[in-house]
Amino acid sequence: MDTKKKIEELAKNIIEQLVQQQNPSMTVPIRSLSNVYFDKKSQTLQIHENASTRSFYNVNHVRKFVQTLAVAAGSKKLVERDITVSIRDLYYNIKRTLPNTKIDLLDSQTESDKAIEDLEAITGLPRERLGLIADASGTVSGKVVIEDSGDTIDWSKLGSGGWAIPSDVENITFKSVKAKYVIYMEKQAVWHRLHQDRYWDKHNCIIMASKGQAPRGVRRLLIRLSEEFKLPIYVLTDFDPWGFYIYSVLKYGSINLATQSDTLAVTGAQFLGITADDIEHYGLKKHFIKFKDVDMQRIGQLENYDWFKASKAWQRQFKLMRSYKAKAEIQSLSNRDIQFITNTYLPEKIKKQQFVE
Amino acid sequence: MDTKKKIEELAKNIIEQLVQQQNPSMTVPIRSLSNVYFDKKSQTLQIHENASTRSFYNVNHVRKFVQTLAVAAGSKKLVERDITVSIRDLYYNIKRTLPNTKIDLLDSQTESDKAIEDLEAITGLPRERLGLIADASGTVSGKVVIEDSGDTIDWSKLGSGGWAIPSDVENITFKSVKAKYVIYMEKQAVWHRLHQDRYWDKHNCIIMASKGQAPRGVRRLLIRLSEEFKLPIYVLTDFDPWGFYIYSVLKYGSINLATQSDTLAVTGAQFLGITADDIEHYGLKKHFIKFKDVDMQRIGQLENYDWFKASKAWQRQFKLMRSYKAKAEIQSLSNRDIQFITNTYLPEKIKKQQFVE
Repeated sequence: MDTKKKIEELAKNIIEQLVQQQNPSMTVPIRSLSNVYFDKKSQTLQIHENASTRSFYNVNHVRKFVQTLAVAAGSKKLVERDITVSIRDLYYNIKRTLPNTKIDLLDSQTESDKAIEDLEAITGLPRERLGLIADASGTVSGKVVIEDSGDTIDWSKLGSGGWAIPSDVENITFKSVKAKYVIYMEKQAVWHRLHQDRYWDKHNCIIMASKGQAPRGVRRLLIRLSEEFKLPIYVLTDFDPWGFYIYSVLKYGSINLATQSDTLAVTGAQFLGITADDIEHYGLKKHFIKFKDVDMQRIGQLENYDWFKASKAWQRQFKLMRSYKAKAEIQSLSNRDIQFITNTYLPEKIKKQQFVE
Repeated sequence: MDTKKKIEELAKNIIEQLVQQQNPSMTVPIRSLSNVYFDKKSQTLQIHENASTRSFYNVNHVRKFVQTLAVAAGSKKLVERDITVSIRDLYYNIKRTLPNTKIDLLDSQTESDKAIEDLEAITGLPRERLGLIADASGTVSGKVVIEDSGDTIDWSKLGSGGWAIPSDVENITFKSVKAKYVIYMEKQAVWHRLHQDRYWDKHNCIIMASKGQAPRGVRRLLIRLSEEFKLPIYVLTDFDPWGFYIYSVLKYGSINLATQSDTLAVTGAQFLGITADDIEHYGLKKHFIKFKDVDMQRIGQLENYDWFKASKAWQRQFKLMRSYKAKAEIQSLSNRDIQFITNTYLPEKIKKQQFVE
């Protein structure tokens, strides 16, 4: 009951301050670009020690102060009941008009969401431990048998559908992992292709997909497979700034979640493709999609990330993408042949270990 | 090989016309509001017999004519290889510059998507039979055992994650169905609540969810459970015009897919909630979200659908919603208690069989 204890500590501390007739306050780590740095040792985004103090008797603070405590109280009840809910459910659960006033505790879900982020930073606990679930959307298959909530689930025996990855994967137990690596892809349609072709069976691996940015459950699952079974994690995205960004967030963390990089950054991730070299090698230029202004801006941002700045290989990718002024999708490989990705692209790239590093 | 035969017939017919030095043409059913009607007998949207003729030697037709044939050829190859791909994959697969010209077969995926719809209408085959998959995003759990691609899958033994519903469910075999009804909901977070509370176990039912409009795989799975096992299908959406529309499309079909209502309309679906009566009964008014103009317009459209016009109960719902000028989410029930939906709302409503009909 680590969570319960931490929340109780927070509450006791405030009560104590009240008893001693002090102005009750709490310390909240600052999460903003200025307080975030790239830690070379861990190769992840981390947060400085800087924190702000939030007090009850301060008209600018009181609202957030009370909201944070209300979220903490709601979270404690969830943990005690051993249930998990979406952040939208928690919002509805705790929203109320304060007794004998016309003041609403929350004007919108934005406020409770912010308070949840604060509570995560204050307690150092990820939201899964606060009784909250993130979006669950990811699919996996491969030669793996797990145990989850008392059920034994064989990821190689799930028909055409795969296993729907839940938002919290901490309590699953791996019974058997017969895989040499994991391919994570940003597109369900690509997963479908590989799954139907039983790629994971032929190549002894695990294939995992979600849509766009990897949800927390997917990231944690990748980290557990990487740490507990030393499996390489290969990331397959489109050749575009957004695909590269998906890889960046997965591997190095993001500013918003910098307090949780230790548990959410898949430091072992390697970028498999699509690369500028693939564009040339596999003749994908005829499937280019022209850049919009916003794509060019996004490259500008990526180029300046510390971790990409330090990499000649990545700077080369950005430079080539800039010169093309265009992007290309994974699925453009289908022009060669529908099963080209299964039969040629992935086996070739993985054999040659052609990663951008 | 029904698909192969139908596509070959289409092709043979065109070759024959060419041999006889006629202008090759094909007949395409017209799918537009004016050609669609509500069939009272089947209680679904259906299409009139009207069709247009598309010819090769007609500058206005030739492009679509060739595109439809290219899609047909691509589809035939997929069916022969017994693989299924996304419509994006097919686009990339068939796109090319016509030999000895500078003319691209396809300018964008919109064109091949349209040609796919035409081919569906011409052959009367749904896209799953043309080797194409739709978006696969849905989750299910319950006391059901199925067989899919040689694997036996127990929907009650999938841990916290459920089974990821594939886009094509025609080939799954039901081995055992111990359920009295199905609840279909438009929100994954609600599914998570019910799944964690093992609602399907306590109440002997199946719970199924997707995001927003039900994908084709979900619709077909609901229809199979309804037709093959006579299970009632209860639909749980927000109290808002979009939730009502999700129900409407699920049960009666949509204009775009009116040629496929027979295979895609879940005619047995019943609307469980959230209703205006729930708003009053469970005190949800304080969680109202104010209407925007677009919400009001949407109600105006819904009110005038033939099937809703014929229903006093639905007209009453629309009228009340209009008077509230507001909508309410399923999850506002969480304000009563996080598990209120599991312990009170659903059991009560299902016991009383309070459907809007």
